[in-house]
Amino acid sequence: MVYLTRRTTFSAAHRLWSPQLSEQENLTLYDKCANPHGHGHNYVLEVTLHGMPDPQTGMVLNLSEIKQIINEQVIRWVDHKHLNYDVPWLEGCIPTTEVLVVKFWERLARSFPTERIYEVKLHETENNSASYRGEA
Amino acid sequence: MVYLTRRTTFSAAHRLWSPQLSEQENLTLYDKCANPHGHGHNYVLEVTLHGMPDPQTGMVLNLSEIKQIINEQVIRWVDHKHLNYDVPWLEGCIPTTEVLVVKFWERLARSFPTERIYEVKLHETENNSASYRGEA
Amino acid sequence: MVYLTRRTTFSAAHRLWSPQLSEQENLTLYDKCANPHGHGHNYVLEVTLHGMPDPQTGMVLNLSEIKQIINEQVIRWVDHKHLNYDVPWLEGCIPTTEVLVVKFWERLARSFPTERIYEVKLHETENNSASYRGEA
Amino acid sequence: MVYLTRRTTFSAAHRLWSPQLSEQENLTLYDKCANPHGHGHNYVLEVTLHGMPDPQTGMVLNLSEIKQIINEQVIRWVDHKHLNYDVPWLEGCIPTTEVLVVKFWERLARSFPTERIYEVKLHETENNSASYRGEA
Amino acid sequence: MVYLTRRTTFSAAHRLWSPQLSEQENLTLYDKCANPHGHGHNYVLEVTLHGMPDPQTGMVLNLSEIKQIINEQVIRWVDHKHLNYDVPWLEGCIPTTEVLVVKFWERLARSFPTERIYEVKLHETENNSASYRGEA
Amino acid sequence: MVYLTRRTTFSAAHRLWSPQLSEQENLTLYDKCANPHGHGHNYVLEVTLHGMPDPQTGMVLNLSEIKQIINEQVIRWVDHKHLNYDVPWLEGCIPTTEVLVVKFWERLARSFPTERIYEVKLHETENNSASYRGEA
Repeated sequence: MVYLTRRTTFSAAHRLWSPQLSEQENLTLYDKCANPHGHGHNYVLEVTLHGMPDPQTGMVLNLSEIKQIINEQVIRWVDHKHLNYDVPWLEGCIPTTEVLVVKFWERLARSFPTERIYEVKLHETENNSASYRGEA
Repeated sequence: MVYLTRRTTFSAAHRLWSPQLSEQENLTLYDKCANPHGHGHNYVLEVTLHGMPDPQTGMVLNLSEIKQIINEQVIRWVDHKHLNYDVPWLEGCIPTTEVLVVKFWERLARSFPTERIYEVKLHETENNSASYRGEA
Repeated sequence: MVYLTRRTTFSAAHRLWSPQLSEQENLTLYDKCANPHGHGHNYVLEVTLHGMPDPQTGMVLNLSEIKQIINEQVIRWVDHKHLNYDVPWLEGCIPTTEVLVVKFWERLARSFPTERIYEVKLHETENNSASYRGEA
Repeated sequence: MVYLTRRTTFSAAHRLWSPQLSEQENLTLYDKCANPHGHGHNYVLEVTLHGMPDPQTGMVLNLSEIKQIINEQVIRWVDHKHLNYDVPWLEGCIPTTEVLVVKFWERLARSFPTERIYEVKLHETENNSASYRGEA
Repeated sequence: MVYLTRRTTFSAAHRLWSPQLSEQENLTLYDKCANPHGHGHNYVLEVTLHGMPDPQTGMVLNLSEIKQIINEQVIRWVDHKHLNYDVPWLEGCIPTTEVLVVKFWERLARSFPTERIYEVKLHETENNSASYRGEA
Repeated sequence: MVYLTRRTTFSAAHRLWSPQLSEQENLTLYDKCANPHGHGHNYVLEVTLHGMPDPQTGMVLNLSEIKQIINEQVIRWVDHKHLNYDVPWLEGCIPTTEVLVVKFWERLARSFPTERIYEVKLHETENNSASYRGEA
């Protein structure tokens, strides 16, 4: 079992704000991340697939296909967007790194061959990241 | 003459859009950077001061003071903000990296001792950056 | 289960020297790391927590609390210190990266909610690191 | 159980080309990686060992020995070489990152004390990497 | 005068060998870089333009055009190539970082508006780089 | 004129303390950097030479000689040392980044061919650095 990781970057704006909380609770919880007009990040996305290399090609999966799927399922929706307003499949989400990584997993997991996807990791800044492996 | 550089990071949203251009011209010029709700970046700011180290302290300038001035003049205004809406002294600017670095220079140049500031450099992503030395 | 990682840095001095070994054995074993006055590093500490995001807040744990606990339990004790002399809870330890990461784990594991801490990783240089998950 | 990771770099050329495929199939599959004279990378190799720190020395394994084994088994064979022509134990391989990491694992796994080696990770570029833990 | 820098990467093979020197002199001078089949690198290219931001657009030059010129003049010729055999305009050159950066400058300097190009910098590894500003 | 830069790293301890100041003045000025037992850093040293590439060899200077001179003049004296106690030619200095970079310049400038050395840059952390070009 070899684990193959592809790194991609995208730039997006977001705002942390929960409609279920009062304004005061939101400010206490999210502090400067609750700024009404939002702020933004250069996100780094790492997608890890696993499997044995095909003896004829030496590949677990073709990197061109991996790139295409990541772009099709995630990057083209989120790059240079505001995550609270511009992405239909993020509607109603609070776009924390934890929530985003689960949403990205869901879209990627159904697009790769069964049992090929292992982990999705998302870096929000050089200091904060979250990863998900589809485990309950 | 020793050059001393301090690196700081901040996260902000912005949108590239010129009120002097038509909608079509804006889209042609700024492409995905013209997204109405904006997008964002983890900016990296590098401020370079120069001078000779004081023989008694070994310092060109005290790093604590440098950090305080950079924070007071720039970071506290732009970190976790939308650069098009939240920063009074950026009003009317198109917040490209080139324009931002000049605006940051202007605020920093008047806050450090005369002839101490040498360069301000701003990285928008790992691939794009701009620097300014106050030269015409 | 989402894994959330927070990266923090600190700068410290240390010396590798075992009181149970002769001077010659120490020099053979630790070589230049046994320098009597010590040497130092910019350490990078990565703490990984896990859990499911709270549906109301989108958070596994609040990052402000994570930062506060890491600072309170580790950073304020070791940053700008000599690890052999200045940290009561490291007394008697040989401060290799492996030993430090276990000691950091012990302090962090008892400070986070039960079953929330997953891994502590410590980078001594860009080439050497150690991680611990509390496993025997 | 502490996991200890050593990072090393090497520079090599390679070409992706399968003798079992037609020229057209090769070009379709490997695209620009099939360039006849090859191309190259600054590879980054991360070797992770695990075990408990020896109470007398504070070490899982001596870093000098780890470096020596990695150099002896891998680096001196591949650094500043063409992976398709210059490395006897890679003969007949298609040198994808996935295949290389398995080959490196095989050589390293038999050179470290039993049950000490945990993972070998190989970065081909800042965007592509593969890792292997000896699992079927 | 604002300095705008664009970073791009490419992967290539090369071999250091001077036809004007004997085999022994070549081996003494270039050592492992003289390996007959070559070796390779992930090169990082940084191109710096300068000028004042256009008041109407906020841009020194449009980044899309900068990217297109860098790709057209340099990247598409050298990416996934062997620099000794595959690049007509490098024929007869010894492809050291110093020589490459001058050749890249020559092609880029004639493609950007007069007096816009300031510096070309080329990183061969994380430890070695060369830059050129067209100065004699 | 091509500028050639070589990056090297070393790990050292230091303490900021001026014998010309009172204990209180030292603590006010250097704060946590004044810790009696010192602290430490992974320093990154960048040495830049300049000249035209030799047409026969393609080199400004041979990188092996550059590495040897940097090691001989700087690295072997400071790597895994305490900069306040272990380096004869730093005696009496307050080892700030600014002071160190001037001292390193002095040793390197007299060891390279006349007019070849251009700049020495020293990074103390990922956020602080100083550079010197021998200018008054």
